[in-house]
Amino acid sequence: MTGLDLLTFGEALVSLRAAGPLAAGGALTMHLAGAEANVAIGLARLGHRTAWAGRVSEDELGGYVLRELRAEGVGVDHVTRDPERPAGLMFLERRTADLTRVRYHRAGSAGSALSVEDLRPALAAGAHVLHLTGITPALSDSAREATRWAAETASRSGALVCLDVNHRARLWTRDAARAVLTPLAGYASVVVASEDELELVGEPGADEPAVVAALLDRGVETVLVTLGADGARAYTRDGVREAAALPVTAVDTVGAGDAFTAGYLSGHLDGLDLAGRLRRAVTLGAFAVAGHGDWEALPRRDELSLLDDLQPGSTLR
Amino acid sequence: MTGLDLLTFGEALVSLRAAGPLAAGGALTMHLAGAEANVAIGLARLGHRTAWAGRVSEDELGGYVLRELRAEGVGVDHVTRDPERPAGLMFLERRTADLTRVRYHRAGSAGSALSVEDLRPALAAGAHVLHLTGITPALSDSAREATRWAAETASRSGALVCLDVNHRARLWTRDAARAVLTPLAGYASVVVASEDELELVGEPGADEPAVVAALLDRGVETVLVTLGADGARAYTRDGVREAAALPVTAVDTVGAGDAFTAGYLSGHLDGLDLAGRLRRAVTLGAFAVAGHGDWEALPRRDELSLLDDLQPGSTLR
Amino acid sequence: MTGLDLLTFGEALVSLRAAGPLAAGGALTMHLAGAEANVAIGLARLGHRTAWAGRVSEDELGGYVLRELRAEGVGVDHVTRDPERPAGLMFLERRTADLTRVRYHRAGSAGSALSVEDLRPALAAGAHVLHLTGITPALSDSAREATRWAAETASRSGALVCLDVNHRARLWTRDAARAVLTPLAGYASVVVASEDELELVGEPGADEPAVVAALLDRGVETVLVTLGADGARAYTRDGVREAAALPVTAVDTVGAGDAFTAGYLSGHLDGLDLAGRLRRAVTLGAFAVAGHGDWEALPRRDELSLLDDLQPGSTLR
Amino acid sequence: MTGLDLLTFGEALVSLRAAGPLAAGGALTMHLAGAEANVAIGLARLGHRTAWAGRVSEDELGGYVLRELRAEGVGVDHVTRDPERPAGLMFLERRTADLTRVRYHRAGSAGSALSVEDLRPALAAGAHVLHLTGITPALSDSAREATRWAAETASRSGALVCLDVNHRARLWTRDAARAVLTPLAGYASVVVASEDELELVGEPGADEPAVVAALLDRGVETVLVTLGADGARAYTRDGVREAAALPVTAVDTVGAGDAFTAGYLSGHLDGLDLAGRLRRAVTLGAFAVAGHGDWEALPRRDELSLLDDLQPGSTLR
Amino acid sequence: MTGLDLLTFGEALVSLRAAGPLAAGGALTMHLAGAEANVAIGLARLGHRTAWAGRVSEDELGGYVLRELRAEGVGVDHVTRDPERPAGLMFLERRTADLTRVRYHRAGSAGSALSVEDLRPALAAGAHVLHLTGITPALSDSAREATRWAAETASRSGALVCLDVNHRARLWTRDAARAVLTPLAGYASVVVASEDELELVGEPGADEPAVVAALLDRGVETVLVTLGADGARAYTRDGVREAAALPVTAVDTVGAGDAFTAGYLSGHLDGLDLAGRLRRAVTLGAFAVAGHGDWEALPRRDELSLLDDLQPGSTLR
Amino acid sequence: MTGLDLLTFGEALVSLRAAGPLAAGGALTMHLAGAEANVAIGLARLGHRTAWAGRVSEDELGGYVLRELRAEGVGVDHVTRDPERPAGLMFLERRTADLTRVRYHRAGSAGSALSVEDLRPALAAGAHVLHLTGITPALSDSAREATRWAAETASRSGALVCLDVNHRARLWTRDAARAVLTPLAGYASVVVASEDELELVGEPGADEPAVVAALLDRGVETVLVTLGADGARAYTRDGVREAAALPVTAVDTVGAGDAFTAGYLSGHLDGLDLAGRLRRAVTLGAFAVAGHGDWEALPRRDELSLLDDLQPGSTLR
Repeated sequence: MTGLDLLTFGEALVSLRAAGPLAAGGALTMHLAGAEANVAIGLARLGHRTAWAGRVSEDELGGYVLRELRAEGVGVDHVTRDPERPAGLMFLERRTADLTRVRYHRAGSAGSALSVEDLRPALAAGAHVLHLTGITPALSDSAREATRWAAETASRSGALVCLDVNHRARLWTRDAARAVLTPLAGYASVVVASEDELELVGEPGADEPAVVAALLDRGVETVLVTLGADGARAYTRDGVREAAALPVTAVDTVGAGDAFTAGYLSGHLDGLDLAGRLRRAVTLGAFAVAGHGDWEALPRRDELSLLDDLQPGSTLR
Repeated sequence: MTGLDLLTFGEALVSLRAAGPLAAGGALTMHLAGAEANVAIGLARLGHRTAWAGRVSEDELGGYVLRELRAEGVGVDHVTRDPERPAGLMFLERRTADLTRVRYHRAGSAGSALSVEDLRPALAAGAHVLHLTGITPALSDSAREATRWAAETASRSGALVCLDVNHRARLWTRDAARAVLTPLAGYASVVVASEDELELVGEPGADEPAVVAALLDRGVETVLVTLGADGARAYTRDGVREAAALPVTAVDTVGAGDAFTAGYLSGHLDGLDLAGRLRRAVTLGAFAVAGHGDWEALPRRDELSLLDDLQPGSTLR
Repeated sequence: MTGLDLLTFGEALVSLRAAGPLAAGGALTMHLAGAEANVAIGLARLGHRTAWAGRVSEDELGGYVLRELRAEGVGVDHVTRDPERPAGLMFLERRTADLTRVRYHRAGSAGSALSVEDLRPALAAGAHVLHLTGITPALSDSAREATRWAAETASRSGALVCLDVNHRARLWTRDAARAVLTPLAGYASVVVASEDELELVGEPGADEPAVVAALLDRGVETVLVTLGADGARAYTRDGVREAAALPVTAVDTVGAGDAFTAGYLSGHLDGLDLAGRLRRAVTLGAFAVAGHGDWEALPRRDELSLLDDLQPGSTLR
Repeated sequence: MTGLDLLTFGEALVSLRAAGPLAAGGALTMHLAGAEANVAIGLARLGHRTAWAGRVSEDELGGYVLRELRAEGVGVDHVTRDPERPAGLMFLERRTADLTRVRYHRAGSAGSALSVEDLRPALAAGAHVLHLTGITPALSDSAREATRWAAETASRSGALVCLDVNHRARLWTRDAARAVLTPLAGYASVVVASEDELELVGEPGADEPAVVAALLDRGVETVLVTLGADGARAYTRDGVREAAALPVTAVDTVGAGDAFTAGYLSGHLDGLDLAGRLRRAVTLGAFAVAGHGDWEALPRRDELSLLDDLQPGSTLR
Repeated sequence: MTGLDLLTFGEALVSLRAAGPLAAGGALTMHLAGAEANVAIGLARLGHRTAWAGRVSEDELGGYVLRELRAEGVGVDHVTRDPERPAGLMFLERRTADLTRVRYHRAGSAGSALSVEDLRPALAAGAHVLHLTGITPALSDSAREATRWAAETASRSGALVCLDVNHRARLWTRDAARAVLTPLAGYASVVVASEDELELVGEPGADEPAVVAALLDRGVETVLVTLGADGARAYTRDGVREAAALPVTAVDTVGAGDAFTAGYLSGHLDGLDLAGRLRRAVTLGAFAVAGHGDWEALPRRDELSLLDDLQPGSTLR
Repeated sequence: MTGLDLLTFGEALVSLRAAGPLAAGGALTMHLAGAEANVAIGLARLGHRTAWAGRVSEDELGGYVLRELRAEGVGVDHVTRDPERPAGLMFLERRTADLTRVRYHRAGSAGSALSVEDLRPALAAGAHVLHLTGITPALSDSAREATRWAAETASRSGALVCLDVNHRARLWTRDAARAVLTPLAGYASVVVASEDELELVGEPGADEPAVVAALLDRGVETVLVTLGADGARAYTRDGVREAAALPVTAVDTVGAGDAFTAGYLSGHLDGLDLAGRLRRAVTLGAFAVAGHGDWEALPRRDELSLLDDLQPGSTLR
């Protein structure tokens, strides 16, 4: 086990955000996207040593992905460049004030061709935490096998494995997801899911207590149920603990779940107790929703208390 | 009567939206504006065959107007190009978060020179619905006569005539408007007005019940009173029916009334009952206020249910 | 044969132009691209009735493609919407002042799935000219067969068939291209190629006179060899005629060849002699290179003489 | 005493506003900033004759500062150009929806080198009101002495002296501020402070009644305590009067206090009673928070009633 | 005669510059335009005291015009605000790299309603130089009379009157222009014209020597013939003197003639001899064409030598 | 000596580029600037392992500097964060098409406080090449001593020391520069200077042969004299060799010299002979001037031949 705090892997996308309606043309801005990259960045901003692994196209868009990861201090030593396949893309449109719409162009992408071989060097180098999401196994057969292999390998080596369910309805059905994710959860110490997603790591139709009980039985130490503006619940063998969300003005909820997970894992790496880990989790979630972008608003360590006792319209000067 | 679902006419303006205070200079963006064009686009997006008639300048700004109408699938076969007069313009400035200010540059414009001759071919081709607004007769004597002639001609041919009062205080006084619009309403099957505008199609100072009763007496089938965030009331001989607005976050209320009318007429063309027509009307109104622009946020047919049961901050992916 | 002047088909792409280096992220602007669409727009701007056929994705990006074609007055009645496949994309980066770099994301796109069935209704409706390019047969087996079928069908029906070689090295090899394009040229009355491309519609390694002679022998009436800033050569049975390029300041050469072809075909439709057709061809080529965008700078009919005897820095007012 | 209504002085900064996170790079926009300039502009927009004095760099950024002041009709006849020192800058970042962060680059700036000599000609010309803030004495020793000298000189000449405490924690400590500002308040007829700042013009730890009583004892005529969204309190020898804030949607609170002060002083110059002065103060404050920028949204005289009885989403046309 | 160096008057327009093709919509930027305003700004940047008179709309666009004039230090004390008429507009489109196209929206504008009464106070205040152009008399009957009256009044008072022909083909015919401008030139000491315009201040069809001779006979002291990239010729009773243009890279020729005139008049005000006046004239012309905008690139006094001996690609640091 | 190829140090600035005239306000874009950083990036893009050392402010602007260096793959392990001093800034304005103007705000900046202690860890880690410029010793006494110390230390350890004269007239006089740089050149193996700068590493007034001879005598192995568009001359004990510049369209010459140096050092690290090193030097110089930005257009290794035999207006697709 080296000095790396967190290793994660998956597909990093180039997100193209439309300023207005996509069908009307106009300007797009480019952003790095990907749930796993969000988590890695969230931890790197807090000073943890993190790395991201995966396949990235060899063209300029792949170069952009690496440029952003490096810029944020996320290690990319074990990234594979794919000379054949293009970068995975997503188009993000604010359809109305309340509704964001995403369109993926990721079929056949470099990232979706992830395989065990791509992850072997990174896993060999090791890390205290391995973070994975339910998106990666939905990308391809080889990515599914790579995810399972990585979870098993890290689990055996004693790393803490964290699984965020992150269901993507445009990639696979709930049944297909459950069939893969429920066994995968068996390797995890921490499982993160929204209320709606929880059933995907349990029996079909099982309710929250039942799914949680089964996960704890199978060796999961902590089950985190995210509740959006209502905060989160954390289940352990010691019972359940709730954490309220911070009262901030939300402007962009994309990435909030990843921020929550990054905060929780940062608390774990800092040796905080459950209350402290949850506090950091909801703090990062609050930063994520209070600023624009998937990860751009996440805090540096010296900013962690910035949202405490904040009045709307405050100015620091 | 051909296969055209809706014909409308009036003045289509080039709207120049300021990013900041107009007096400070800076960037403007160009948009197509005009209450009648908004209605035509709203219906075209839902798959109805629509056409817009009017006079458009022969220069690049007139070309822009046609470009946008064609782009949205609105027929422009019977548009007259005016080689002499310039395009009508409006400057739109967000004066404060709550107040939008419009300045017109439309005196002497191509659109204001509309005459009976300009409309003759379009009326001859016919349509199931003729939509007109109280803006057009305020533009010039010839436009006033053209509006009256078109209403009479369509009414006689059996088309459903819809009149939206749309009072523009910078174009004429309430008394001048009433003197023209009250007789005009006699040709209409559907009359649309805000609470404040209703008195302009009735006796001076008459209250809502009195104006409605008089309109129904004169043969109007449906009187729609728009109530902004409070929805709308629809009066028929069978009584009154209310429809609540959809609970969305409003970011730009310009064009909401036109969207409402387009939704109502779409419901009519689809053969919906009054409740169904009102539901579609408030749905389109909700899209209009939940997105930026006068018509840019209006839904395609497959998007009609997108705002149902929506949580703020939702993401479709 | 209906009243349509020109029918063309192929893949219309969403072109994303980077303001700066693509790898650095930043702003992109969206444009309609596609050699065949460029030709259709060039003719529509001059008042010819044109239509474009092909497969377009059913999402917002496909909507954008149709929006732009309609805006430019190009008929889209026979376009097929593809509910499964995404829009074809291209990223365009000005690598240096002298070098533009294009990256395609079109594998598996809606447009590349073009088949004979997609073209049948459009061909049945007919047109005076059918324009096709050597790009379409490079997209897929079905697109290749559709191209051949359309060329044969139009040729038999008496339409003038125009083939622009348009070699795309990232889509196929020169040998693969030659094997398809040389037989395809047999259906054409007009063949357009750059000096470098000419060999792809003849014997491997054949020189210009030899390729031209063989084409004329096989029934091609006009062979147009484009020479960039040096203008063009036109070969017919009557010999060769040269046309110089117009002396304009070039700022963006993308789309110049398509503009040239559109000008030539416009001259043909207007009944001009060869000199007149070439003059219009180089005129449209000059507009294309003197303005930004693939087709955005093309002239309306009343602008055709705008570049004649122009001094740099002129102002029309 | 000349015809000038108000003279103010201090440091005018070039404010660079980031569109997104500052650390991510991207676009900045340039604005004039400075509490005293804000007040001068607020009064000039209402038609009062105002002037601003201070040191401004001789380069393009200094030219920008003067350009903006002149554009707003603020007199700059007595501004000193500094050929050696650079313009003072501030970077302004919207850290989250609720929190704005400012970073100053003003150490060693032209503005901070303000001295008595710079102010002598302006003071000699005179004005009905001299406005000064607690920012200027924090800039340098010479600026502190210049502020004191100007307050004393104006006070002696019979001008109304207005002091806005405007504490800047990044420039000096509360103790340092109190040591300078408490004696300075002795020259003032009007003192403006937030609840939190009030203690800086009194005894350490004194409560509001105590500080106010001491100020009134020392000859201050009016003490204005600003309460943000809760309006303001005005103390005179006749007692205390409260004014509620106008109910507007706040989008940018920077500059609200300066707008309040400008409104109050405008009311004074117009000869309004205390209620009228407070009404104008909260009106200008409302404009400031309802629009973007430090002063850009402030009203012209004919706009003063624009926010009265305003419904969200109103359109003036 | 007061201390004012130059008074000028005319119509100041709001120029809306399109970033791309106007018919495609998109972004516009706002600029102050007007030949006379350009001259006033050119002189003000060099430190001369200048004023501009004319009618300006009372809305935000008129406010913008005044804001820009004040920002540049041009006196606006004698500007009339017109509460009824809108601002004059122009749309400016870079049609190709070599061709700029302007469309005016100035019929019925505030500026075109200029009358003798509007100018009376400014003329009473006086100035060393009165500058007028051949645009103003083309705007309306009252503007024509105002121009004539001002020229006569200033001439009688001993001011130097400068007339720049500035023919605008979209406003009037050459014959109409000649009928007005030839008598007007009789009041002038300095007449500025391009080669093509010269005939408009002489007999129809007269050549350059004939027109110049007649003008000098009628009392004109200096006739300046501008030659674009070839510089200029200056005729006086002492003969003709040529001045070459400075060798700079031209990016925007709009405003070059106004810059030339401003430079000439600045030289006159500084007491330079003819060679010195011409040198300053071509220097300002060079700045105008070497930067974007009508007047934005004009030099401050300390920048006058910046273009001397300049290598392309130089950096000052 | 570790595996690091190149170490460099100095001040990295935040460059704010104005889109138009700086005095007119408007938009600025943020860029990383600094001659040494440019060289490090040039080498990193070609795959060499590089690091940059220096002092960087602890705020967001310092964060931006590190973000960009990391993004480009330049090592920042030995960078010192300065909690007190602000980031050094420069404003860059394209004054005319031919002239760029830079204004520094770097007095008292974090970067200018560089000292020996800041460099000690980086020098201890070692590198094959140490690159330094004549800018750093102009920043402060401690930076001058740090530069001298680093040059001496690296020279003793056997690293190749490269000195680029890079005279900045706004930072110090030529005499002051010569007094420092001439002794400094004694530690260097490679000295880079423009024709105009060469005299600053020799006797006052000495001509090129004399300065070169003296440098070679003192142990310098290669003297590179850059000639802008005329290429460069390289002097060694074996004589002089010339290299022509590549024939590209130049759009931005800032950073060309740094690119040249990076190319030369890359050739050295790759073991190329002098001709090969010069070829790479002029190739990188060509990329720098053919694209916008100081370093943004520099090539990746696979792009090195992209400009060979390029026709203007080429498209890669």
